Amino acid sequence: MSLVRPLFVVAGIGNGTGTGAATARLFAKSGYRVALISRGPDYLNKLATEISQAGGEAAAFPLNDYTTASIKSAFVALKSHWPSSPLRVAVFNAGYGVWKPFLDITEDEVRESIDTNILAALAFAREALLEFTKLELETANEGGVAGNARKRGTLIFTGATASVRGNVLTSAFSASKFGIRALSQSLAKEFAKKNIHVAQSIIDGTIITDRTKSRHNNPSWEADQDVRLDPDSIAKSYLHLVEQDSSAWTWEIDLRPAHEKW
Amino acid sequence: MSLVRPLFVVAGIGNGTGTGAATARLFAKSGYRVALISRGPDYLNKLATEISQAGGEAAAFPLNDYTTASIKSAFVALKSHWPSSPLRVAVFNAGYGVWKPFLDITEDEVRESIDTNILAALAFAREALLEFTKLELETANEGGVAGNARKRGTLIFTGATASVRGNVLTSAFSASKFGIRALSQSLAKEFAKKNIHVAQSIIDGTIITDRTKSRHNNPSWEADQDVRLDPDSIAKSYLHLVEQDSSAWTWEIDLRPAHEKW
Amino acid sequence: MSLVRPLFVVAGIGNGTGTGAATARLFAKSGYRVALISRGPDYLNKLATEISQAGGEAAAFPLNDYTTASIKSAFVALKSHWPSSPLRVAVFNAGYGVWKPFLDITEDEVRESIDTNILAALAFAREALLEFTKLELETANEGGVAGNARKRGTLIFTGATASVRGNVLTSAFSASKFGIRALSQSLAKEFAKKNIHVAQSIIDGTIITDRTKSRHNNPSWEADQDVRLDPDSIAKSYLHLVEQDSSAWTWEIDLRPAHEKW
Amino acid sequence: MSLVRPLFVVAGIGNGTGTGAATARLFAKSGYRVALISRGPDYLNKLATEISQAGGEAAAFPLNDYTTASIKSAFVALKSHWPSSPLRVAVFNAGYGVWKPFLDITEDEVRESIDTNILAALAFAREALLEFTKLELETANEGGVAGNARKRGTLIFTGATASVRGNVLTSAFSASKFGIRALSQSLAKEFAKKNIHVAQSIIDGTIITDRTKSRHNNPSWEADQDVRLDPDSIAKSYLHLVEQDSSAWTWEIDLRPAHEKW
Repeated sequence: MSLVRPLFVVAGIGNGTGTGAATARLFAKSGYRVALISRGPDYLNKLATEISQAGGEAAAFPLNDYTTASIKSAFVALKSHWPSSPLRVAVFNAGYGVWKPFLDITEDEVRESIDTNILAALAFAREALLEFTKLELETANEGGVAGNARKRGTLIFTGATASVRGNVLTSAFSASKFGIRALSQSLAKEFAKKNIHVAQSIIDGTIITDRTKSRHNNPSWEADQDVRLDPDSIAKSYLHLVEQDSSAWTWEIDLRPAHEKW
Repeated sequence: MSLVRPLFVVAGIGNGTGTGAATARLFAKSGYRVALISRGPDYLNKLATEISQAGGEAAAFPLNDYTTASIKSAFVALKSHWPSSPLRVAVFNAGYGVWKPFLDITEDEVRESIDTNILAALAFAREALLEFTKLELETANEGGVAGNARKRGTLIFTGATASVRGNVLTSAFSASKFGIRALSQSLAKEFAKKNIHVAQSIIDGTIITDRTKSRHNNPSWEADQDVRLDPDSIAKSYLHLVEQDSSAWTWEIDLRPAHEKW
Repeated sequence: MSLVRPLFVVAGIGNGTGTGAATARLFAKSGYRVALISRGPDYLNKLATEISQAGGEAAAFPLNDYTTASIKSAFVALKSHWPSSPLRVAVFNAGYGVWKPFLDITEDEVRESIDTNILAALAFAREALLEFTKLELETANEGGVAGNARKRGTLIFTGATASVRGNVLTSAFSASKFGIRALSQSLAKEFAKKNIHVAQSIIDGTIITDRTKSRHNNPSWEADQDVRLDPDSIAKSYLHLVEQDSSAWTWEIDLRPAHEKW
Repeated sequence: MSLVRPLFVVAGIGNGTGTGAATARLFAKSGYRVALISRGPDYLNKLATEISQAGGEAAAFPLNDYTTASIKSAFVALKSHWPSSPLRVAVFNAGYGVWKPFLDITEDEVRESIDTNILAALAFAREALLEFTKLELETANEGGVAGNARKRGTLIFTGATASVRGNVLTSAFSASKFGIRALSQSLAKEFAKKNIHVAQSIIDGTIITDRTKSRHNNPSWEADQDVRLDPDSIAKSYLHLVEQDSSAWTWEIDLRPAHEKW
């Protein structure tokens, strides 16, 4: 049994109230060292501090942008921060959405959507998979984490309704979210042979975050747990994916609130 | 907090070595009373005894056939056996498969496939949903079970590759498995408003059971946990579905061994 | 070049104003002998007379019900009516819909749905495929029909939105429509090797027929060609499927009015 | 009735032996003026000459690359070449494929795949839709073309197996092909209200072209019309999509050879 705690990395933390942050908190509690990659150093540092104060181990790796070079640098930094920890879980949660009539979408919005949603996903996947392929299968109770799922690592992409259905205002957004879904399916098939588990979620509804709270500005929406997704609940499903042993892996899991229309 | 333990019912136990039995064992361990519905009274009684000896509560409700009338009777019997227990989880795991060139499939095989896979699923769903709709939302720690997911109940159907893809030898089989998938999606949408969670799995590979062991007759296949589904691992994903709270429900979860080609 | 005109058979004519009848009219005009199978002898005879008066060849084969035995008898009758004509096209257009809350659906409605939508489809497919497999590939300009598509025959199933999506009121209906879709996919894969083309449509909207006209009772809906499907337009796509040569076959074609929301 | 012949534009001609060229030939024969956009001026000019000599009207608009600016310029050029012709049909057939293990794919290949498959598709769609939205509905027999389908225009994207399924060697390729599929679905929904028809094909097999002939180097593969797609047959389905009137439009049509495994 290894005494070294395994490493969890997540990209896309936003303001620290959504899926990325909830996942970081849950994996920290479950025994992982947590590497946080995102733009917005203030939110990143705040979350790292919060997790440390709660008894976890976390470090922030802020990005200026989601270019391939920046993502590579973040991985170099996190590996030199924890040189002996094996990277076991990587969650790509970054995203850029644009909901507009097609002819109103600017070239900059298209570019940003492609860069953040597809190119960054490809670069993040590459770094994570390069690490996973170097490792041996995890051992039982590795560093105190449940483990023993016969994996080298788990890579999860956060998807959306727009990953599976194009709609009137989603031409550019869904083009990139469908793209990640294709990527996740291709990688799931290619790397499963090496006991690397690639999965993706379909978040089919609105997640409650600081941003969506202020957009809704509606206390009864906030209070009604049946109408919006709780980031902590999403995180539990991500942990379940990570704990699935190699006899029964999920590629795609849809998640929506009970009262969502779909 | 209710002191009464909640009820779990599963239809389709086979010879007690597959998904139905593994799910029954896991839910018994998790605090549920377990009602077993299936043909084959010997296997049923053996499993009920095994679960009881391990400290669980189980009872067998054997069927002669999967007709609507038989399924209704089984539900009457299980409710009178545990009159005060609320039914919280129902798993439809029965199935009948036929893999043959289309023109070789007999009328009896078609009939059996429709009866077991579709008509029995409809009847089972009806009985479970009639029970769920009578209940209040579960309370936290109901009868010692984790709970507090803000549900009246959870209904899970076991699907297969043939639920999502027709193939050369699956004309009759996939016709009925696609049918259950449609049923599960319709019911998921219709009953979610009442906080009843309907989900289905896509078992995309071979499950290791007594039957598949003797069919393969290959110790290395049995020993290699990456090439076949372990019923206990499937059961864990079913428990995860049941534990999902109403802010983040899954309708469909695919499960396959790491080394499966798909 | 054969001088014998090829045979077209369609099941499901309703009152002669929908897809089945439109398809029959178009294939009659295109040079096929047309066999009409349906309940409702009056509508059938009226359509057969109409087609004959327009210079086509048609005969009515009324059914009492859509049982396997009845469908077999209809095929025996049509083959003895035109013993020398090769059956080249078969369209299964029969259907039974029920849109109701799940717990309100009666056993009779379930049974009728299964019988008409699945069992009848299986029986019809069997008879058509038994005929096709006996034939040689069609010859160029067979009996005056365009031909030369290198096929033994084409079998088309009429699908619906409920073939690909379960919804709140469609539990029983979509269960059977998904079933036909699975059947059509399995048969497409199995029989393509024999140059038999199996395809299906997804009719994703309301078709204008006598029945839907009286249900809408709205002249502007009738007049607006962008909001409802014209049976003659559907028929043109069916003819296109039949004319596709063996280098480029379609399995599934969706059809909807321009202004449909989907 | 307008006497001006309508305009057809296609991007992606390759060496003039594939889908783009076949579609150009068929639409030229059907009465359209044909604008050819592609890299490779020699192939373009050769095809334009061939079409002109066969009695059609064609002009070549060579590109240096598939950037947004280049595509815009090509549309400016083709409109000034035929200022009075309404653009009625636009086919995006350009594509860049890379089949490699994920970790072997270079940044250049990723970039080229995104640029040609997604960014160029977005730019091409934008130019075509800007033209279509300026037009009135086509009139019957417009410029001698069948017409009267109550459309402003038709935009078709050529898709592939990789548009609907990620696979072991297709991570980058399918990411962009899924992207176009999403784009085509979003645009189909958004622009249908304006009677603009957006569709896409799924080419699920190998098309016979000069390139695939030399790759296979197998006369029996070439001769067997059941195992590879004929570009002329694909073109016929594209023409069918264009001729569908606004009561029955297809968004997605799959096309494969009879003997393809899928």
